[in-house]
Amino acid sequence: MTEEGHKKLDWAAAHMPVLQSLKPILIESGAMKDKKISMALHVEAKTGVLALTLQEAGAKVSITSCNPLSTDDDVANALREKGMDCRAACNQCNEDYYAALNGVLDHGPDFIIDDGCDLIKLLHTTRTDLMGNVIGGNEETTTGIVRLKSMEREKVLKFPVFNVNDAYMKHLFDNRYGTGQSTFDGIMTATNLVVAGKVFVVAGYGWCGRGIAMRAKGMGANVVVTEIDPVKAIEATMDGFRVMQMDDAVEIADFIVTATGNCDVVAQHHYPMMKDGCVLANSGHFDNEIDKNALSSMAQSEFDARYNVKGYKMLDGRTIYLLADGRLVNLASGQGHPAEIMDLSFSIQALCADYLLNNPDMMPGVHGVPDEIDLFVAKRKLELSGVKIDKLTPKQEEYMSGWKEGT
Amino acid sequence: MTEEGHKKLDWAAAHMPVLQSLKPILIESGAMKDKKISMALHVEAKTGVLALTLQEAGAKVSITSCNPLSTDDDVANALREKGMDCRAACNQCNEDYYAALNGVLDHGPDFIIDDGCDLIKLLHTTRTDLMGNVIGGNEETTTGIVRLKSMEREKVLKFPVFNVNDAYMKHLFDNRYGTGQSTFDGIMTATNLVVAGKVFVVAGYGWCGRGIAMRAKGMGANVVVTEIDPVKAIEATMDGFRVMQMDDAVEIADFIVTATGNCDVVAQHHYPMMKDGCVLANSGHFDNEIDKNALSSMAQSEFDARYNVKGYKMLDGRTIYLLADGRLVNLASGQGHPAEIMDLSFSIQALCADYLLNNPDMMPGVHGVPDEIDLFVAKRKLELSGVKIDKLTPKQEEYMSGWKEGT
Amino acid sequence: MTEEGHKKLDWAAAHMPVLQSLKPILIESGAMKDKKISMALHVEAKTGVLALTLQEAGAKVSITSCNPLSTDDDVANALREKGMDCRAACNQCNEDYYAALNGVLDHGPDFIIDDGCDLIKLLHTTRTDLMGNVIGGNEETTTGIVRLKSMEREKVLKFPVFNVNDAYMKHLFDNRYGTGQSTFDGIMTATNLVVAGKVFVVAGYGWCGRGIAMRAKGMGANVVVTEIDPVKAIEATMDGFRVMQMDDAVEIADFIVTATGNCDVVAQHHYPMMKDGCVLANSGHFDNEIDKNALSSMAQSEFDARYNVKGYKMLDGRTIYLLADGRLVNLASGQGHPAEIMDLSFSIQALCADYLLNNPDMMPGVHGVPDEIDLFVAKRKLELSGVKIDKLTPKQEEYMSGWKEGT
Amino acid sequence: MTEEGHKKLDWAAAHMPVLQSLKPILIESGAMKDKKISMALHVEAKTGVLALTLQEAGAKVSITSCNPLSTDDDVANALREKGMDCRAACNQCNEDYYAALNGVLDHGPDFIIDDGCDLIKLLHTTRTDLMGNVIGGNEETTTGIVRLKSMEREKVLKFPVFNVNDAYMKHLFDNRYGTGQSTFDGIMTATNLVVAGKVFVVAGYGWCGRGIAMRAKGMGANVVVTEIDPVKAIEATMDGFRVMQMDDAVEIADFIVTATGNCDVVAQHHYPMMKDGCVLANSGHFDNEIDKNALSSMAQSEFDARYNVKGYKMLDGRTIYLLADGRLVNLASGQGHPAEIMDLSFSIQALCADYLLNNPDMMPGVHGVPDEIDLFVAKRKLELSGVKIDKLTPKQEEYMSGWKEGT
Repeated sequence: MTEEGHKKLDWAAAHMPVLQSLKPILIESGAMKDKKISMALHVEAKTGVLALTLQEAGAKVSITSCNPLSTDDDVANALREKGMDCRAACNQCNEDYYAALNGVLDHGPDFIIDDGCDLIKLLHTTRTDLMGNVIGGNEETTTGIVRLKSMEREKVLKFPVFNVNDAYMKHLFDNRYGTGQSTFDGIMTATNLVVAGKVFVVAGYGWCGRGIAMRAKGMGANVVVTEIDPVKAIEATMDGFRVMQMDDAVEIADFIVTATGNCDVVAQHHYPMMKDGCVLANSGHFDNEIDKNALSSMAQSEFDARYNVKGYKMLDGRTIYLLADGRLVNLASGQGHPAEIMDLSFSIQALCADYLLNNPDMMPGVHGVPDEIDLFVAKRKLELSGVKIDKLTPKQEEYMSGWKEGT
Repeated sequence: MTEEGHKKLDWAAAHMPVLQSLKPILIESGAMKDKKISMALHVEAKTGVLALTLQEAGAKVSITSCNPLSTDDDVANALREKGMDCRAACNQCNEDYYAALNGVLDHGPDFIIDDGCDLIKLLHTTRTDLMGNVIGGNEETTTGIVRLKSMEREKVLKFPVFNVNDAYMKHLFDNRYGTGQSTFDGIMTATNLVVAGKVFVVAGYGWCGRGIAMRAKGMGANVVVTEIDPVKAIEATMDGFRVMQMDDAVEIADFIVTATGNCDVVAQHHYPMMKDGCVLANSGHFDNEIDKNALSSMAQSEFDARYNVKGYKMLDGRTIYLLADGRLVNLASGQGHPAEIMDLSFSIQALCADYLLNNPDMMPGVHGVPDEIDLFVAKRKLELSGVKIDKLTPKQEEYMSGWKEGT
Repeated sequence: MTEEGHKKLDWAAAHMPVLQSLKPILIESGAMKDKKISMALHVEAKTGVLALTLQEAGAKVSITSCNPLSTDDDVANALREKGMDCRAACNQCNEDYYAALNGVLDHGPDFIIDDGCDLIKLLHTTRTDLMGNVIGGNEETTTGIVRLKSMEREKVLKFPVFNVNDAYMKHLFDNRYGTGQSTFDGIMTATNLVVAGKVFVVAGYGWCGRGIAMRAKGMGANVVVTEIDPVKAIEATMDGFRVMQMDDAVEIADFIVTATGNCDVVAQHHYPMMKDGCVLANSGHFDNEIDKNALSSMAQSEFDARYNVKGYKMLDGRTIYLLADGRLVNLASGQGHPAEIMDLSFSIQALCADYLLNNPDMMPGVHGVPDEIDLFVAKRKLELSGVKIDKLTPKQEEYMSGWKEGT
Repeated sequence: MTEEGHKKLDWAAAHMPVLQSLKPILIESGAMKDKKISMALHVEAKTGVLALTLQEAGAKVSITSCNPLSTDDDVANALREKGMDCRAACNQCNEDYYAALNGVLDHGPDFIIDDGCDLIKLLHTTRTDLMGNVIGGNEETTTGIVRLKSMEREKVLKFPVFNVNDAYMKHLFDNRYGTGQSTFDGIMTATNLVVAGKVFVVAGYGWCGRGIAMRAKGMGANVVVTEIDPVKAIEATMDGFRVMQMDDAVEIADFIVTATGNCDVVAQHHYPMMKDGCVLANSGHFDNEIDKNALSSMAQSEFDARYNVKGYKMLDGRTIYLLADGRLVNLASGQGHPAEIMDLSFSIQALCADYLLNNPDMMPGVHGVPDEIDLFVAKRKLELSGVKIDKLTPKQEEYMSGWKEGT
């Protein structure tokens, strides 16, 4: 229902005060005025607020989803009702999904806001005709950054892209506290199962994985971490978690959640080792972290156990459950990150777009977000939360910059 | 949809192995054979599994809800399709609600399963005609126990009632880990707001309150506790929480959740002191812990901010949000306690009903659950979870029973 | 040094405000005036403050330790300098230890304050001649209560004894937060090893064990619990811990700490299964929870690895470490419970002694601490901490005592 | 006692397996053979093991302390008995402290291992004569790095120095889990006060501060954080802590611990606002984080409350306590970081020294530790702990390096 969509947008807006407070700044800047911005993000309420903010700052926004399952149709309808070119719909088949991506590009964008790098990849492969017009872009997520850095390494990336993901005010909060909470929103909504007392396996101990592990612990689970990086693995042990290889973890898991950005983390040879009733979910960007095709091919039958829970009946009688078809469980089964978290990420997005449009001559490549933008958002957030912090006294500043005063 | 209801029942049943394992025992016992059991519980999937278990053990079950907002209509339909006399429906008006309670009593019950003591109260006030037939009952929750103990004190309680709530295998798990998790299921579903970094006020530090506080902390909140009991208040401080009077807590709260079993815990004089955007929810049995009438009377307008979120616009411009109309947020906005938790509580329910029907001469009054039932459920749970624990050696048993061996 | 002892007493007194505040009450009561009180408690600073408080209230105190390793000689000297009959000394051999126990009994006590029941046991076995004079006593700890209940069951207990351990203001705080913290004080002082990332096995999930497990988790350990009670075992799993049999736990343990009140919890057959470097410690009352004789007999050699750390070199080359000779590690290697915690326990002690001396006709047997004493201490503590809590309104009181108002 | 020192060294060595395992590598490399290494580190057991390792690898080691209060004299004696030129002693006056620093420089070092930059500062100011011989150095701690970066900025730093502090395997573990645990070792040893239920203020939310805050929370405290950095401040709030200005925090603090690397964090104007009994401690490198001179000048009298606890009696009757004279409480009152943590830091130290001596032509300046050293230590640690982690499959490696495969 469109009305429900407007409510969701209003609710989100009311809980994104930093982004709201940027509007006059963006209008004053004028950099977005009449610029065409093509966006591929998860189209739900918080994203809607970002898109509307850019629109109010003068941009002509065309938006679609970056994932076939993550669109909130209420919100998409409301955006259309507000005059936005929105092509997202939930449960798009692959063909429709790509048609929508191409559709927002048809727009002839000056600026790209991407999440997972699907738009930018299209621009560099089948839609190179549109490249000339593009001033630059932003990339939202780890997975997209990995792809962009490959492009940069191969020297094919043709315009500047801000690595929004690596801004402090983005990944420290969005990836960790955002993914941490929303993953459990997704899991609880889908399953109504208890987390406390369960063996909860988290694949990957990056910012997302550690957010999930932290919250799993906070919900009372017995957490197991799998990793490929030795430093992160030791960190996980020091945080009190068991670290093991996935081959061992699958044997004791009640839940397995992936957050690696890699494929086949749960793979064909793991399914025969799982306990009856094991629940699988993915919080990573793409739906290939859990090899669901292998699971399907090994099962004797599949059934819809609940909404967003598919049961795979194995030949030996065990049942394995996959949530949200292996797509990001926090968006496909839950409501995505909390509004206050996205307020930070999307404020970075808006300010980066403004910055790049004001600085159109930046070199092609992946650019870190300027510290001043990070700091601006952080200070604004503290201010709006009423939290006061200390300032260095002149004596302290001098002390910190000297080296002669010792013991 | 009824089909969805059957799925939910199957899912719950698959995650309630202890209760499933009791079926042959209850059938073998025969105590329920042809007995009429009237139940007033939250009619959702787990309760459905309990009711079906009793039905399969030979009882004639008549069931309705113990709360006008907590019924899952899918499940209610599925139960009816399985031939049960189910009178529950979601969003009943008060009249319908009481009609349904009276309806299950019309049945002429041998046994009562109550949650909040509404059925037993009716039997002792307007339906005394049916009392003669009643062998006894079970009471599920703290609030009901408080009422029953008042009745006992006033010497009006006419039949024996098991205090299921105070069984270890019930309150230690259901009230604490169950309420703890499901309260956040309810809050996250209703609001999609972040918990981390918020001032989260929990009213009451009983088993429910401490479950909520524990999970709020586990989700990253800054937790404040209010109490009337000095011992519990000190416990809360030693658990790292701030303890303050509600009059002070309301001024800093982002969320306030009540779990006290008492009325007017959030009261008229608190509303003017709240921050703009404060979110109120109740996890206690009745919807009088937060004085919503006062809130409504003080507001200049009310609006549906989201599903299950009502906004109250105050005269000074602040907005206060109330979740699920002040009814138990974990059931009215979430899916209630996880299945594995209710497996324990409802196994106690089933065994208590069996015990009392086998021992019809128990004295009127509130009876503690026999230790043997608690232990039976605990052992069965461990067994079915594959957890092995130690046994005393003969030497240790002797040591524990002696007193002469010292330093 | 005696001077150091006075400082320790002053420090403890400054951090035991509740007990300090009881002095005028005890003097006013007069019940202790000229009464002979024989005490066997861990003689360190906090106990010293209790003994001095009783002395200032008019009692003639004779005190010794309840454990051969737990005396702080500085404090013992200071107490003697303050004119108290103190017979405690650290590292007493068994003979001296018992001579000291008998010494405080020679005094001819009116009242006993016991910790572990050694004094009361002597009175009922070899010192029955003194029994006639004894009005009653207090018992401080779980182990003593277990022994007293055996005596009560065998109907041999000849005078009333307050079960101080089971007062809320004692066991909820002393056993849990006190043992929790001081066990780590003891372990860290003895070993300087890291807790984070270690497999930390806690034997027993009573109040002490759960305090230890909670703090081990708080220090970053991976906690494993062993239990004999199914309910506690399930609680431990729901708190996120692994529960296993000791036979399995010993194979993965980096640390094993016992808190069971039972003997041979770590037993002969466990030593061959332990990892090289495993550290054993006991937080229970007696030094028989870990079978150190068996360990000694199986080792090829023993050596002092550090102060309070004995290394046992096994035939296969592994080394197993035992802290503080298996005596309560928090007192023998650490400084015992924090002062503010003992403030609560010892306020209960003082008020119980006063109560029983004022009510000399109480029946022989183990008596629960009157609720009014618990509440008095709790309220006083809140007051002195500046924490304010809520009070029931008249409407709320009425509501809580009624049963007719329902949904 | 020297014997005790040897025991401590043996104990530490037994718990530093990574460093032990490097010995053959360092000998094989030969880079240290006959090189003169001057070290200024906290001279206690773990440092002793590092110094002995370098000595066994062929270096001629001269060592003194980097702090007048942090030397363990037992260990210093044992090192001397093992033929090392050790000039450290506990409680050195400032003159002796500097004499010792100059003494280890008199040696004419090829390589410097510094902690806080006192040695390197001397070399660049009063001992420039010795500079010619120096190939390079390592710096252990944040404070030293801040000074070195000032030197680099001012272009005065004359040789290459490895920033050991910023190695992952150092700061992630040493600063966080090491400081976290050892700070409480120091506080508990000094005070025997309870942490649970206390308002515990942590100044600074860098790696050290967050380690302290994490452990304070794990011990049950109510944690307050002060910061000057907006991003870290928001992180602290999201971790559930209250963030406030020190001016406000001092009014509610039971404990204040500084870990900022800055001066006057607790300053003159704070003392009048503190509660009676407030305990101050510093975990930062220098003893100027708490302005103890101001405290002393404002107090009407000072007294030794306990070992390492100085009481300051204020004019208005309040007492403020300062631990370990404001020097790093974890070393001056506790035993410093756990051995297993220092195993990681000192393995980085040893490998960096080896690397730089093998690459004598590195440019002057502050150099990051090569990733290969970090990874080597991490892998070795996992191996020796028996923890196995996953490896990328060829397919996964390819996937991670591609950018064309998307949704």
